[in-house]
Amino acid sequence: MSPSRRSEQGPGQPGVLGGEQVEGHHAVAELLRCGRRRIREVWLGAGARGPAVDEIERLAARSGARVVRKADPILANAAATSAPQGVIAWASPVRAVALDAVLSKADPFLVCLDGVTDPGNFGSVLRSALCAGVDGVVIGRHRSAALTPAAVKAAAGAVEHLPIAAVGGIPSALQTISRAGTWVIGMDGDGPEDLWSSRALDGSVALVMGAEGQGLSPLVRRRCDALVRIPQTSALGSMNVAAAAAVACFEVARRRREGAGAAR
Amino acid sequence: MSPSRRSEQGPGQPGVLGGEQVEGHHAVAELLRCGRRRIREVWLGAGARGPAVDEIERLAARSGARVVRKADPILANAAATSAPQGVIAWASPVRAVALDAVLSKADPFLVCLDGVTDPGNFGSVLRSALCAGVDGVVIGRHRSAALTPAAVKAAAGAVEHLPIAAVGGIPSALQTISRAGTWVIGMDGDGPEDLWSSRALDGSVALVMGAEGQGLSPLVRRRCDALVRIPQTSALGSMNVAAAAAVACFEVARRRREGAGAAR
Repeated sequence: MSPSRRSEQGPGQPGVLGGEQVEGHHAVAELLRCGRRRIREVWLGAGARGPAVDEIERLAARSGARVVRKADPILANAAATSAPQGVIAWASPVRAVALDAVLSKADPFLVCLDGVTDPGNFGSVLRSALCAGVDGVVIGRHRSAALTPAAVKAAAGAVEHLPIAAVGGIPSALQTISRAGTWVIGMDGDGPEDLWSSRALDGSVALVMGAEGQGLSPLVRRRCDALVRIPQTSALGSMNVAAAAAVACFEVARRRREGAGAAR
Repeated sequence: MSPSRRSEQGPGQPGVLGGEQVEGHHAVAELLRCGRRRIREVWLGAGARGPAVDEIERLAARSGARVVRKADPILANAAATSAPQGVIAWASPVRAVALDAVLSKADPFLVCLDGVTDPGNFGSVLRSALCAGVDGVVIGRHRSAALTPAAVKAAAGAVEHLPIAAVGGIPSALQTISRAGTWVIGMDGDGPEDLWSSRALDGSVALVMGAEGQGLSPLVRRRCDALVRIPQTSALGSMNVAAAAAVACFEVARRRREGAGAAR
């Protein structure tokens, strides 16, 4: 029996985002390094070798996590992603934070997901957001992707660090964010402002990313203080949501550094 | 028998990159819209409905492509990706171009992939590159991801537009590119220059992206005219290669527009 069967995860547990099953080198190493979650067990495939696996063994020894070598087919059978890289860990779930908590920082830099459903995109957004210096991510409790193993693997450890607020509805959360003085910026291929010249991205911002295919929902669009497009050169006209989030987050990061330089 | 069995694809056919099986709304619509490839057949699931499917039917009628409705389980069985969205097309393969062809443009803007192997990442890089105005992508014939159905789907139609040069070795291609007067920029988390202040990104550039996990190979690193990092705020320290490519490509695009503005 894999440790996930013994998980205390349960639907309806408030504030529980999932993320118990952690696969892949980056994600498991960061789970161990960060040490915020209780770790039940770490499985390594019998054939798993190399520097990344050595590092996981070292981190597990340091944190006291139990490591078990498993026959490769048993590990493959327990894996929920197509490329667990010979390592799976089981941990206590990732817990959501309150929206107030992510808004309480000075000059907050937030990302809000309006219905992003693909786990790989969700995880990739979390990873890029953390790298760009985002303070917190806001997701809808009902319409969003969950922290499935695929999302956790794509996040490559970002779920251990990045506060995630799960709200009842994105539109009302955006209202709260806007009233708290943070600009709510909808990323929209048809937006009237463009990423590189819009002044709306200076200062405290919440970037809102729409669902794959559909983009922002009409109500969310109305709740945005500005609608900003990423200038496109091609006829394709649409970017992957994770790529668009990375580009937008790093544009905000660039301006923040420029602003810090100018203030010095 | 699915049309792929009748494909004239063959290993070792020079200049053939694959890409015969095309799945998903975006990718199939762009295949039909662009019209550069011969289309054998388009399958729609019996239950496939909605505006994206209507658009595919309209484009297929315009181009004379044969559309067949198939029972959903038959379509699902023929699909090579997990989410074909009820549509698969079979077309003649995507063909590579010569390296000279991608270098022949004024002020070329290129992306070179040094061993990127994940099909989803490969396709996502192609999609972002095209949206950012990249003129061509250079891949290694042997060490790179192929245009599998997963790559073609992630590229969302970019393979119909973006010239791809498949070279015997990336290091010698970089030498050719550099000698032709285009700056070869290795994207490297430990690079001494940073994305926002490096002057190496002005003018004609080839951005070189390393493999997932390993980054740039030692020989490729030596062949780069500059090594540039994306400034990171977090402890994670590493980005997904497709997200990094998107951020780097759009920084070049931003500067090109600024440069065009300044020259006016």
